[in-house]
Amino acid sequence: MNQTKIGIINVTGYAGVELARLLYQHPRVELTSVTGRSTAGQRIGKVFPHLASVDLTIEVELGDVELAFSAMPHQESAKEVIPLLNRGIKVVDVSADFRLKDATEYLSWYGFTHPAPQLLKQAVYGLTELYRSQVASAQLVANPGCYPTGAILPLAPVVKAGLIEPDIIIDSKSGVSGTGRTVNLQTHYSEVNEDASAYALDGHRHLPEIIQELKLLRPEQLPSVTFVPHLIPMTRGILTTCYAPLVSGKVAAGGKGKEEIRELYLDFYQDEPFVKIVEFPPHTKYTWGNNLCLIHPTIDHRTGKLIVISCIDNLVKGAAGQAIQNMNLMLGLPETTGLEALAIYP
Amino acid sequence: MNQTKIGIINVTGYAGVELARLLYQHPRVELTSVTGRSTAGQRIGKVFPHLASVDLTIEVELGDVELAFSAMPHQESAKEVIPLLNRGIKVVDVSADFRLKDATEYLSWYGFTHPAPQLLKQAVYGLTELYRSQVASAQLVANPGCYPTGAILPLAPVVKAGLIEPDIIIDSKSGVSGTGRTVNLQTHYSEVNEDASAYALDGHRHLPEIIQELKLLRPEQLPSVTFVPHLIPMTRGILTTCYAPLVSGKVAAGGKGKEEIRELYLDFYQDEPFVKIVEFPPHTKYTWGNNLCLIHPTIDHRTGKLIVISCIDNLVKGAAGQAIQNMNLMLGLPETTGLEALAIYP
Amino acid sequence: MNQTKIGIINVTGYAGVELARLLYQHPRVELTSVTGRSTAGQRIGKVFPHLASVDLTIEVELGDVELAFSAMPHQESAKEVIPLLNRGIKVVDVSADFRLKDATEYLSWYGFTHPAPQLLKQAVYGLTELYRSQVASAQLVANPGCYPTGAILPLAPVVKAGLIEPDIIIDSKSGVSGTGRTVNLQTHYSEVNEDASAYALDGHRHLPEIIQELKLLRPEQLPSVTFVPHLIPMTRGILTTCYAPLVSGKVAAGGKGKEEIRELYLDFYQDEPFVKIVEFPPHTKYTWGNNLCLIHPTIDHRTGKLIVISCIDNLVKGAAGQAIQNMNLMLGLPETTGLEALAIYP
Amino acid sequence: MNQTKIGIINVTGYAGVELARLLYQHPRVELTSVTGRSTAGQRIGKVFPHLASVDLTIEVELGDVELAFSAMPHQESAKEVIPLLNRGIKVVDVSADFRLKDATEYLSWYGFTHPAPQLLKQAVYGLTELYRSQVASAQLVANPGCYPTGAILPLAPVVKAGLIEPDIIIDSKSGVSGTGRTVNLQTHYSEVNEDASAYALDGHRHLPEIIQELKLLRPEQLPSVTFVPHLIPMTRGILTTCYAPLVSGKVAAGGKGKEEIRELYLDFYQDEPFVKIVEFPPHTKYTWGNNLCLIHPTIDHRTGKLIVISCIDNLVKGAAGQAIQNMNLMLGLPETTGLEALAIYP
Repeated sequence: MNQTKIGIINVTGYAGVELARLLYQHPRVELTSVTGRSTAGQRIGKVFPHLASVDLTIEVELGDVELAFSAMPHQESAKEVIPLLNRGIKVVDVSADFRLKDATEYLSWYGFTHPAPQLLKQAVYGLTELYRSQVASAQLVANPGCYPTGAILPLAPVVKAGLIEPDIIIDSKSGVSGTGRTVNLQTHYSEVNEDASAYALDGHRHLPEIIQELKLLRPEQLPSVTFVPHLIPMTRGILTTCYAPLVSGKVAAGGKGKEEIRELYLDFYQDEPFVKIVEFPPHTKYTWGNNLCLIHPTIDHRTGKLIVISCIDNLVKGAAGQAIQNMNLMLGLPETTGLEALAIYP
Repeated sequence: MNQTKIGIINVTGYAGVELARLLYQHPRVELTSVTGRSTAGQRIGKVFPHLASVDLTIEVELGDVELAFSAMPHQESAKEVIPLLNRGIKVVDVSADFRLKDATEYLSWYGFTHPAPQLLKQAVYGLTELYRSQVASAQLVANPGCYPTGAILPLAPVVKAGLIEPDIIIDSKSGVSGTGRTVNLQTHYSEVNEDASAYALDGHRHLPEIIQELKLLRPEQLPSVTFVPHLIPMTRGILTTCYAPLVSGKVAAGGKGKEEIRELYLDFYQDEPFVKIVEFPPHTKYTWGNNLCLIHPTIDHRTGKLIVISCIDNLVKGAAGQAIQNMNLMLGLPETTGLEALAIYP
Repeated sequence: MNQTKIGIINVTGYAGVELARLLYQHPRVELTSVTGRSTAGQRIGKVFPHLASVDLTIEVELGDVELAFSAMPHQESAKEVIPLLNRGIKVVDVSADFRLKDATEYLSWYGFTHPAPQLLKQAVYGLTELYRSQVASAQLVANPGCYPTGAILPLAPVVKAGLIEPDIIIDSKSGVSGTGRTVNLQTHYSEVNEDASAYALDGHRHLPEIIQELKLLRPEQLPSVTFVPHLIPMTRGILTTCYAPLVSGKVAAGGKGKEEIRELYLDFYQDEPFVKIVEFPPHTKYTWGNNLCLIHPTIDHRTGKLIVISCIDNLVKGAAGQAIQNMNLMLGLPETTGLEALAIYP
Repeated sequence: MNQTKIGIINVTGYAGVELARLLYQHPRVELTSVTGRSTAGQRIGKVFPHLASVDLTIEVELGDVELAFSAMPHQESAKEVIPLLNRGIKVVDVSADFRLKDATEYLSWYGFTHPAPQLLKQAVYGLTELYRSQVASAQLVANPGCYPTGAILPLAPVVKAGLIEPDIIIDSKSGVSGTGRTVNLQTHYSEVNEDASAYALDGHRHLPEIIQELKLLRPEQLPSVTFVPHLIPMTRGILTTCYAPLVSGKVAAGGKGKEEIRELYLDFYQDEPFVKIVEFPPHTKYTWGNNLCLIHPTIDHRTGKLIVISCIDNLVKGAAGQAIQNMNLMLGLPETTGLEALAIYP
């Protein structure tokens, strides 16, 4: 069977190298070209020993591929992606550069003027579970951020159903790989180990993305979202705890209400291969290395609040795995191809 | 100078052994008696090598002391404490057995009938910053739980001032030592490492304690509190993120509002040796091994929410350190005696 | 294609559950029966959420299978294995019960009289790289211990070639999962985190296994082996550092000697799919979750010592992965089937 | 009581900031001046929040002090130290710049020509237990490296007594803070977590220091030392495992030999406040945050090897603590002043 040729722009960040790992093992595509800046000219297995068996040299320029992933930082990614689109190549952009529909948000949140605002409408937001059919026919997919993936999936069913007041608190706890492979004091082992902290209290760049999508799920209601990300001492995983008041009278009291909510979630995600509604508070460890999002909705009956918790591996469902899930759809492959690996425990 | 004789009941849990470490180094008291069950008869330095220089044998029965700490589990602690009180000994109970004023809550939250309801009124809740004068004259101090300490201190100023709606969310992230030294699968290294999870979604036992104290801070308003504790892979530390809507019109908009809130906190805790208002999101690491509570209040202006974050070392300000802070007051010693150590970094 | 039915006795330890993960994903066999004691009657995905998609109920008795893995503790494993052998079932025993050829060693090292000494000769020691052909025709394979795997593979080439004096020091550093899933204070997160220690200084049970195999590699020379295992704060991985004096005059001085040694290792393991000779000191992370053993031999020219370092994932090449590697041979399948997954990084 | 004024050059590395923590709490000296490069002009508590109570601004130039610690990197430290010595200031140099007696070793091991070879003889090697009286009268003390401290202390008794053959293997496992606060990919949390590795196989810079001191302990015998440092995922602590053949006939066989060795160590370190001979394999956790070196000598009777294991906190006894131990002697203070804190557990 002929395999589609795939490339990765900037393979040397954590999202890029995780893409390489997953694509190399993908049975229906062939990873034929990877680029990097400081490491160009070296074999990928030299830079990343766990990829020693991958026979590829890191290049300056992307070779001839049918679909490319861009794992460049924001602002730089758009510059790489636009020429590829012009050449008719399909692109999954792992950066933020095509996630927001409103070009002015790039100036306010990311500090740059978007170079191709017209592409923002064309780009499909690659939260696969919400945009499956659009992804399948897209040339450009904007792969969601890790925090938005962990936040939108657990909130979507109740937001869409109008069961919660639009007064939402999202408290996320992320492993350190989410901050990237770039070195700085904040990711020094001795600083992060035995430490927990909140950050970006004035607004994290993933917030407009979350608001945009929650609004699209229920356009009649502007959501009020407080989002606080936290850094905790682990490599992979995001645990997201969402809180919102239930709309009065729509959900039964007591255990019956919990059951109704649970049914709603089971229905909403009933055919989803990668979203699982679980009966217990999920652990990030249960998603370590795989593409699942585990969701546990419950009700705090003392206060009438919905509490819904999700777990993902930030580098898989939160980045490379979801990007490949989107690629599968764009290439007409079964959505789960190459993504079936079980989580590694313990 | 004559030193007061002090004892610890059940020195072998993490709170008990941390009490031993701090009391041994305390310049004004002498740790003269420690008890334990399975380890009775052994020297304490044999069981805990970091205490090798402590010349004490673990006993079955407490020796002759003026003040005793009980680090027994709840329900068992009361049984040990009551006879001591009858003998006129001062007690700081590190367990939950005298924290709640309403005896019926012990049945609903802890599953036992309280053996001495009359003592619940007499006992002083030992959140030192709120009950300093009562602690000073108490015979029995109920040392707060680790989560309540981390939650009440950051909320007290705004609750008391009536600046927030009584609709509070408390999202706590705790190190593993908070769950105690008892072995079980949940604290196995391989299970906790590279893992984050929420627990006690149906109500953690520290919730009634938090509600009781918030209510006392503002009796005219019944607080609605959603509290979700999380376990994260570190040994010590609790990071608590609190969210509540600001009462409309009471705080200025924009940066001025943040400044007003900050001033309120600085005033509220201005003379406190162990509570520090910081200008940045605090890290648990900055309290590692010491008795500080760091608090950072801010406002999410997009949503009108107060966000206030605290950090403590769960075994110090969240247990043994605060217990000694209370002891100092009960013995007429300067409150900070024996608790001045800086946090250990990194 | 018909798939061979496979079973696991005692699936609930870390080796057992890792077997389940790998076998479930194996394309040529079908995991049809798993047993457990305290968890019998529950679905495996209930006990191990990462196996939620595995449709199996934990049983008391093994069902009808062609090949079984025993992941029972030593002494108990033999009791389970012997009846299976009598029924003609092929067995890979992950315990120590058939690793030692000399039955008296079970009494001295494990404290029990071996119930079937006659089987010890029949059993093949499943260090696949050394016993490939015997494994292929064996009914009973004794899967090596994690430490022996990490020690014998890096030493085999030089021992066999007679290049080192038989005066060997093996200093191993193991992740905590190597001590098993049984709970005890030594594996409590708060005890192991931020800690390193040596143990078993009077002789670890894996020592006779190491000596036995080194002796078989060079029967004319009794090896003198000092083996010290260490526990370090990580979940998976064993780093083994071996030291031995080079036999005088057999290896060239300087860089040339290093190259000779390297060539020897490259030759020895040239066709091995799971042993890789690397040019840099290997990291356990490069084997995280996969079946590789990375080996780096070098020479300390100041002292004439060979230093050879190996890395494995103790639960894969050190347990479940190697067991499946052996199973593949026993079933006539390609040796790498189901074991091709790349290590997960970071 | 007048307090001696003390300064720290380059307070912003981990050794420097640990000096600041310990000196601030020291009852007999006053930390009056600290320097830093990129952080000059900032208050120390701004840069290091755990030092918020320390009232000092980081300066470009050292103020007027009687004794200074230099925590500069090697090669740069000598440049700072020499002018201080000329001004009559006492100096404890935490860098390597005055540790080696033979100036040519700086060129071969550190790649620079030593600027003041005549000072190398004058400088006292600050392994306090071995050079106590010289330290007391020294103007310049070269504080030992962390690995040499962890290696020389456990080897000194047997080397001096001539009980081991001079064929020594030192296998050290270090926490990450030992590599310094400078950021690079090797100390990125995601790279070090769940990882163990050896490094510097061609010779670590601490090797000549170890050899120099072992030689001085037994000048008649040139030691052959193989030293392999390892990096393991923890912040603080070095566990050192030393192996050497016992000289034949000097130590009794069996348990009696172990006891003889133990007695030798107890005698050698009998009056030492910071070196403790322990009866069990020590854990780095038992020294976390304090100045102790725990040593456990034993014999592998199967092979006639001495095994001796030591634990230190690399930032305390391995750096700042020992430096203060030396300062105490240089100032005529009791050696343990300011260093009595118990280790923090868990």
